[in-house]
Amino acid sequence: MKKAVVLVSGGMDSCVTAAIASNENRQLAFLHVNYGQRTENRELKAFNDIGYFYSAKEHLIVDMKHLNKIGGSSLTDISIPISDADLDNKDIPTSYVPFRNANILSAAVSWAEVIDADSIYIGAVEEDSSGYPDCRRSFYDAFENTIHEGTKPETQIKIITPLITLSKKEIVLKGLELNAPLNLSWSCYKNEDKPCRQCDSCALRARGFKSAGVADPILK
Amino acid sequence: MKKAVVLVSGGMDSCVTAAIASNENRQLAFLHVNYGQRTENRELKAFNDIGYFYSAKEHLIVDMKHLNKIGGSSLTDISIPISDADLDNKDIPTSYVPFRNANILSAAVSWAEVIDADSIYIGAVEEDSSGYPDCRRSFYDAFENTIHEGTKPETQIKIITPLITLSKKEIVLKGLELNAPLNLSWSCYKNEDKPCRQCDSCALRARGFKSAGVADPILK
Repeated sequence: MKKAVVLVSGGMDSCVTAAIASNENRQLAFLHVNYGQRTENRELKAFNDIGYFYSAKEHLIVDMKHLNKIGGSSLTDISIPISDADLDNKDIPTSYVPFRNANILSAAVSWAEVIDADSIYIGAVEEDSSGYPDCRRSFYDAFENTIHEGTKPETQIKIITPLITLSKKEIVLKGLELNAPLNLSWSCYKNEDKPCRQCDSCALRARGFKSAGVADPILK
Repeated sequence: MKKAVVLVSGGMDSCVTAAIASNENRQLAFLHVNYGQRTENRELKAFNDIGYFYSAKEHLIVDMKHLNKIGGSSLTDISIPISDADLDNKDIPTSYVPFRNANILSAAVSWAEVIDADSIYIGAVEEDSSGYPDCRRSFYDAFENTIHEGTKPETQIKIITPLITLSKKEIVLKGLELNAPLNLSWSCYKNEDKPCRQCDSCALRARGFKSAGVADPILK
């Protein structure tokens, strides 16, 4: 592989994905999206910190204020409360941002086509997740086909989802194995100073570190 | 059909598409995208004018400045000249904005899922066109499958492309038949005051009106 676009939200999963992409590619191009989510500033800081760590040659920050205007999610609409974690509930949680990952991937494909990258890495997790529909591999397969149909004939872009079948425990262990800077990542949906330890994202992260038998460096 | 999101760039094709959607739906929600294209202000005016004409109940204007940042097209990068029309050339023209329609459709799906619309109308033209890959029905079929995989199980959104197989002549005739306000539409890629009559978009429009045997109202 020559050049990869890596989607880096700044969370634990994207941090480990960046570590994997760094191992597998000659050049990295980091992409981050602000979409008016509650912890926008903290996530952007994590993106910048992880980008410096990996010396990404190119970076692009995309503003998608329309996802905030459109709302429909507790992450973008402050009138919808962030639910406390309920990891056994298989309903789609209120933090689902409608079709968010398609918006993000579309921007990534536009960029990849122009800068001549041949893959896009995204740290989506299917099994051990909150059940977002746009985090399933079947969605990425369908999207890959859409890329094939909607770009120039010579454009070949794969969507790489290295974490899709991993548990949160396995993601933590993979991160440790690759020396991913987990201390720079941020997962909490609610707070920008201290993790709330109550939201889905904090709960999934805590479960990962606990089952891996290591302490979360951001809780030190 | 109950409620349709209609993508209205402000050009002739989207104007006729709005006329068709108005006939086929109880409620219309008009969506427009500014992406730093050269004629952004003029297109926005056309969108607003056509929206008032059809009394669209909801409207959303989305800013996608990243398409301008990313560039790669003569529409968004002023260092790439707008080519004069060459309608016999089957290469993809410099005005192709990489994967633009996927970015626009993704925003439309996010909105449609939140406002409970069951279709998205887009005035893409496959046959009598400039040869953009993201204007082919095969692209929209792939995208529809991506919607199915990436949204809530209860979400059902169709992509309707009523002009996809029409010639520009047939589009003009359809517009006249439905009393579409073609006088409010704007097609030129280059100018915001008077159509340049040289770009691909002006040439395709002129061919449509000429072969339909009527005068273009914006040239009066």
